[in-house]
Amino acid sequence: MPSPVFSSPRLVRQIAFLAEIDKLKEILRQSVVTTRDGTIGRRENSAEHSWHLAMLAVVLAEHSPVPLDLGKIVKMVLVHDIIEIDAGDTFIYDTAGNASKAERELAAAARLFPLLPADQAAELRAWWDEFEAGESAESKAAQALDRMAALLQNLHTEGITWREHGVTKAQVLERNAKIGKAFPGLWEEIVRQIDWAEAQGWLA
Amino acid sequence: MPSPVFSSPRLVRQIAFLAEIDKLKEILRQSVVTTRDGTIGRRENSAEHSWHLAMLAVVLAEHSPVPLDLGKIVKMVLVHDIIEIDAGDTFIYDTAGNASKAERELAAAARLFPLLPADQAAELRAWWDEFEAGESAESKAAQALDRMAALLQNLHTEGITWREHGVTKAQVLERNAKIGKAFPGLWEEIVRQIDWAEAQGWLA
Repeated sequence: MPSPVFSSPRLVRQIAFLAEIDKLKEILRQSVVTTRDGTIGRRENSAEHSWHLAMLAVVLAEHSPVPLDLGKIVKMVLVHDIIEIDAGDTFIYDTAGNASKAERELAAAARLFPLLPADQAAELRAWWDEFEAGESAESKAAQALDRMAALLQNLHTEGITWREHGVTKAQVLERNAKIGKAFPGLWEEIVRQIDWAEAQGWLA
Repeated sequence: MPSPVFSSPRLVRQIAFLAEIDKLKEILRQSVVTTRDGTIGRRENSAEHSWHLAMLAVVLAEHSPVPLDLGKIVKMVLVHDIIEIDAGDTFIYDTAGNASKAERELAAAARLFPLLPADQAAELRAWWDEFEAGESAESKAAQALDRMAALLQNLHTEGITWREHGVTKAQVLERNAKIGKAFPGLWEEIVRQIDWAEAQGWLA
């Protein structure tokens, strides 16, 4: 006997979308998690990353020199990675991967958001488009916090992904420069930490 | 050489809090994740659950018969489980665990939120208190969606945690009744699915 279908077509689509995006929990990033016993943990997945990034927004948005709509940042952050279910996570220091990233992610967005009822598909797609465009103050902040999340994880794990991939200090400064655009004060502090990480030999 | 301390005491506290709550990624729930190949996955952690629950709120809040402030629900959902870093996840069908749950969670809240600067500690603690109290329309909805998340996962995994723990249909109906209070229409649909799950032999 097949499972009874939800009686409203709208609800059928909503439940199907929610089940589909649950798969983001399987997409692994380069970053590793902080463990309770202080050891280097397993690799982080994009679903738990999205939660932690939302918490970074809640706690750190106040450091922006321009006023920000926190609710808008959180919405963007919640949907920013679901395209990775099809497109995978692309490491920011992977040049080849980043060349094909936009195309893969657009195809993923075109499949995933329309699982929802049309009005919600358009609404959530608009959040993702805004995040990707990086033009609004909120999307600039969301992108900057996304970079900051990975940077903080490296600083807490002796630069584990930097060392694994032979990343240089110049690369870190260049690929994370957008933190400085959205949060100049935070960036100044982070640069001191990067200088220190280099002195520890964590950067090539 | 020790890591340079962030120069602002406020930022020191914010970064310490964010590093501490990263540990929520290590807290395992009874629920299992939906995998991309359709097999039964690993157990879910509370950080990725918090993200998925926020997405349930985004997609399903419209089914409430009373108007809801979605932003408020999302804020509550983001912080609702961080007390599990100290208190652990308590399975809703674990009677003994639930007897000591409130005390353990209050102690955790008293340690974790004050890692933040005092004003932010008070703000986030208020979100958690509102969620726990379950008195506002938004907290009733957030609690209902929290239950629904686990229910949907069981329906998608042939009742895996029900079967593992010998949970009865009466228990499922009783422990999830608050879904019906916040979302009567959704609950009616879910009850049909529970009836069907029972017919499959997934409930004791």
